[in-house]
Amino acid sequence: MKITGIGLYLPPKIQTAEELSKKINKSADWIINKTGVVERRISDIEVDEMGAIAAKEALNGDKPDLILNASGVGRQVIPDTAVFFQRELNLEGVPSFSIQATCLSFLVALKTANDFLNNGSFKKILIISSDKGSKGRNFNEPESAALLGDGAAAVLVELSDNNEESCLEYWKMKTYSSGADLTEVRGGGTRLHPQDSKTIFSDNLFSMNGPQIYRLARKKIYKMLLEMLKDQKIKTTDIDLVIPHQASITAIEAYINYGKFKKEQVVNVIGKTGNCVAASLPMSLAIAYKNNQISKGDRIYLTGTGAGLSIISALIKF
Amino acid sequence: MKITGIGLYLPPKIQTAEELSKKINKSADWIINKTGVVERRISDIEVDEMGAIAAKEALNGDKPDLILNASGVGRQVIPDTAVFFQRELNLEGVPSFSIQATCLSFLVALKTANDFLNNGSFKKILIISSDKGSKGRNFNEPESAALLGDGAAAVLVELSDNNEESCLEYWKMKTYSSGADLTEVRGGGTRLHPQDSKTIFSDNLFSMNGPQIYRLARKKIYKMLLEMLKDQKIKTTDIDLVIPHQASITAIEAYINYGKFKKEQVVNVIGKTGNCVAASLPMSLAIAYKNNQISKGDRIYLTGTGAGLSIISALIKF
Repeated sequence: MKITGIGLYLPPKIQTAEELSKKINKSADWIINKTGVVERRISDIEVDEMGAIAAKEALNGDKPDLILNASGVGRQVIPDTAVFFQRELNLEGVPSFSIQATCLSFLVALKTANDFLNNGSFKKILIISSDKGSKGRNFNEPESAALLGDGAAAVLVELSDNNEESCLEYWKMKTYSSGADLTEVRGGGTRLHPQDSKTIFSDNLFSMNGPQIYRLARKKIYKMLLEMLKDQKIKTTDIDLVIPHQASITAIEAYINYGKFKKEQVVNVIGKTGNCVAASLPMSLAIAYKNNQISKGDRIYLTGTGAGLSIISALIKF
Repeated sequence: MKITGIGLYLPPKIQTAEELSKKINKSADWIINKTGVVERRISDIEVDEMGAIAAKEALNGDKPDLILNASGVGRQVIPDTAVFFQRELNLEGVPSFSIQATCLSFLVALKTANDFLNNGSFKKILIISSDKGSKGRNFNEPESAALLGDGAAAVLVELSDNNEESCLEYWKMKTYSSGADLTEVRGGGTRLHPQDSKTIFSDNLFSMNGPQIYRLARKKIYKMLLEMLKDQKIKTTDIDLVIPHQASITAIEAYINYGKFKKEQVVNVIGKTGNCVAASLPMSLAIAYKNNQISKGDRIYLTGTGAGLSIISALIKF
């Protein structure tokens, strides 16, 4: 598998820490120190339109034979967002469906695409992640409200040629449902349906217990990193770039403080984008690529946590 | 790939056409003639609990190394329902995520599982579909309200042994987003968020234009059936059982009237279950299996439409 196209959509409207501070009754300094998010983007267009802009850049005129939506929260409950991406891209007929693993949807879609390609099921797979995290902000929960932002990114993946070394070298996922209630949007489904009388306002908003997730996840992530290094017979210095989910500044810096990666090895864009749910991982990849931080043959470690709590540890040869 | 376990959960509470007739201001005869649904089940427990009951039967004490949720509508927006299945099943650590293709989620999950198994990524994959269609009924839209019901089913899939012929023989999907607005739950996502002032009551409920879907889909489904027969060099009489999504009695009978299958070849359980969204396909498989309609080595054609509009044409050797 190789990535043959990368696209990014950063909504033009910026919301600064200063602007947000009034809504959540905290100072701009508090926001920046606590979350690392100096500014985030707020989208005036829908997730399907955002994703389609990123997808057009990734496609660069090419046509996929499968569209995978790998976002956190959909445009609506039915149909799934993949269909709306297809409509925006004018690709009537192309099979389109969604992979859902909240913030890790992109990494699950990458693995799924890899196995589809290797099995000969599809030839050109378009993966799109697009999220409007700003829509789910609960201004009564300042820390998570300060984290979330909007954005989209897309990649096109194809089978590598025989003479190329591009591949998905390693992929492992673990899910710990003991942490299921640490990151939630409790409403929007069958349990707390929008018109059930027991559904309250905050049930439809994002709720996250950052410190407890960090406590639950840090050792588990570190263990999965060590397992990967051992399995692949490599050292942290053999990895050219680490792309973590932009969960929070604490989570990103843990790869430096505990994972023993150098600061310049770890992609950190949370200050400019916030946590864009599932879009953060491919957005970080796209931003690093556009900043010439990625070259052909580079070994990239993709990792992070998603609501669940799930953890993925993945290595690609670009 | 072979199916090594099958489980079913039919909620005990029955709602008859007579009981429903008062809610939608139509007679029981109208309901039965229009939709074919004589009775449907209404679940008092949540989708994760329903799915876990079916999953335990499919597992029969075995332990999967991947849990795929393949339902239509989730328990809540975040985390995805796969995580809650894992919690109900006490399978902490096992990777868990969701495949979303509305009513066709199960058939997409089956294909995904097949490619994961063939690529050596996983060894025992648990696929669970669980839906409470009754929650999304709009009693002001009598036809779709009369169709929907609740239920769950699960299968365990593993790699076949060398001497077995069990496999996924054929799988093809097409998505036509020109039909995206024919089946919708418009709310619950970022576009018509539950607390947006422009979101109205019916946006959170199921809406379907049955006759127009039928017009759009019938010829396309027939073409995909013919393509499959040609590709596989078989005739309709070589297929032991047809399991269509239980969309409506008209959709099911089209396989007999237009597809030229014999009545006894086509699984028809809509009269007793209604349309259980994504759960309908595996529920039909499970019911046929329990009724001894399926034997080892049988060729089963799985097909149907999902919101999107998507169509899948799949053939398994059981």
